Amino acid sequence: MTEKGEDRALEEFPVEMTTSRLRLTPLDPDRDAVGLHAAFGDPEVMRWWNHPVCAGEADTRERLREGAGRTGAHLWTIRPVDGDEPAGMVGLLGGVEVPGLTWILRKDAWGRGLAAEAAGAAVRHALHGLGLAHVEAWVEAANDRSLGVARRIGLTERGRLAQRYPHREHPHEMIVLGRAGGAEPATVLGAEAVLPVRDVAARLTLLRAALGGRTLFSVGDPPQVAGVGFGPWSVGPRLRLEATRRWRVARVTLCLDVGTTFEALHRRAVAAGADIARPPAETAWGTREFVLRLPEGHRVVVAAPA
Amino acid sequence: MTEKGEDRALEEFPVEMTTSRLRLTPLDPDRDAVGLHAAFGDPEVMRWWNHPVCAGEADTRERLREGAGRTGAHLWTIRPVDGDEPAGMVGLLGGVEVPGLTWILRKDAWGRGLAAEAAGAAVRHALHGLGLAHVEAWVEAANDRSLGVARRIGLTERGRLAQRYPHREHPHEMIVLGRAGGAEPATVLGAEAVLPVRDVAARLTLLRAALGGRTLFSVGDPPQVAGVGFGPWSVGPRLRLEATRRWRVARVTLCLDVGTTFEALHRRAVAAGADIARPPAETAWGTREFVLRLPEGHRVVVAAPA
Repeated sequence: MTEKGEDRALEEFPVEMTTSRLRLTPLDPDRDAVGLHAAFGDPEVMRWWNHPVCAGEADTRERLREGAGRTGAHLWTIRPVDGDEPAGMVGLLGGVEVPGLTWILRKDAWGRGLAAEAAGAAVRHALHGLGLAHVEAWVEAANDRSLGVARRIGLTERGRLAQRYPHREHPHEMIVLGRAGGAEPATVLGAEAVLPVRDVAARLTLLRAALGGRTLFSVGDPPQVAGVGFGPWSVGPRLRLEATRRWRVARVTLCLDVGTTFEALHRRAVAAGADIARPPAETAWGTREFVLRLPEGHRVVVAAPA
Repeated sequence: MTEKGEDRALEEFPVEMTTSRLRLTPLDPDRDAVGLHAAFGDPEVMRWWNHPVCAGEADTRERLREGAGRTGAHLWTIRPVDGDEPAGMVGLLGGVEVPGLTWILRKDAWGRGLAAEAAGAAVRHALHGLGLAHVEAWVEAANDRSLGVARRIGLTERGRLAQRYPHREHPHEMIVLGRAGGAEPATVLGAEAVLPVRDVAARLTLLRAALGGRTLFSVGDPPQVAGVGFGPWSVGPRLRLEATRRWRVARVTLCLDVGTTFEALHRRAVAAGADIARPPAETAWGTREFVLRLPEGHRVVVAAPA
């Protein structure tokens, strides 16, 4: 589709690419839907996808058109170098804030490293052809196969978030993996809200019991400053408690994204005797939330996808 | 040192382990210092270490004793299966909050995958022998070789933090990589402080210009709620701005850990005309900090290792 030297076109359209075993051509929904329906119509292949199994070729065609039509989308159909039958699709999603990779393979193409071969070519095109500063992929935490693909093509974990697909009953945890084109921009590594409290030790105990917090550090006896972390690692979401003698303190609101543990955390908070200022409820902006209130009035909003 | 079946001893002492090419025996600083000094006395090997090159065998012995003496330390000397000369050291650090891996190899043992072979055995021992729920390794962001080792033994990035070693002039960025023994505990995925402000759009502009923030979302026109993220990824440190009509608002303090970009961020904040309520200064707790104040009185403490 693109001739060498057409630099402008490189930025706007997918370019045909060849790897040792694969030929990637710009996705053409009308031409490729019949072949790609072998993937989009297969429940096993679609297990991790963000929409249900496509009911027929027309449905697959409509989904492909919708994806290809989003601003910034660069999608290729994957074929064997010596064949015409589509084996899958790979590329960059459109309509996203951060450039995001996507890939799918028919089941009969699994197990030979073809996804990594195709997605690796897409990454090189994104970082070197298009000159993007970084690309990422969102992979469900339980999807070991795709996590392996992402890691083989040089993407490393950057964090996690929770999502709920409309066709699924429960939210799930996504791992966000990323790769930068050049030296990674040094940047802000962490953000930690400070909650002034009258009794640091008591609030530590409450946050541990109610929300599974972990004491990161504690200064003074009785403690005057303490760090509370969530999760088992040395990094991750955290807050700081600082002792104050004022009776009226500035009330801080802190939102915690808890993904799949929402119900369990609510039960835990109730069992710990926490002051639940607002019981679990769906919000207008697509989350479920409950509010835990500390004695000083600070509000910890515990949220998950609805 | 430990006989099979001594389950109790397994929990308390390192056990001898053999891999296809290596024999790992509990570190004995008196016996092993001479051999290990080939690593601890080599500037190239010590480039990433948290203390300077050891001046002589006595210095190496002292460092090894100090490390082995820390509570919870499990350190092994690495030898070839068919030799007695130490090739390096591997194990779990003592005196740390989260179980942490360490490894070092003499330069003449590099390039053959021996570090991953030894560290992989240490990980298996930690997770299956000792039954630890998780282990992590802190690797300098520029240390590609050790990042490769960590990833080959199944550790994945969990976040980043900044450190400054006493013998170095500048702080550096560490990648924290971790591996869990079983299913990873679902947990809090993110924490986001809410800053009530009178003009969301103006504060967005300021945080973008002064601190390199990125608009994650913005609701309303003019915006009533907006998310500000730091760094290029869909995940990472963030805060939320919410419109308020009150003139007096609760003043929130938020601490940002900026690691190696401290000076550059300060220059950027000054150039953006931000209100610097406190210029850069060293604190009693080992950091350098400056404070950026928003018109509502919110304080953004920008911090890095001193």
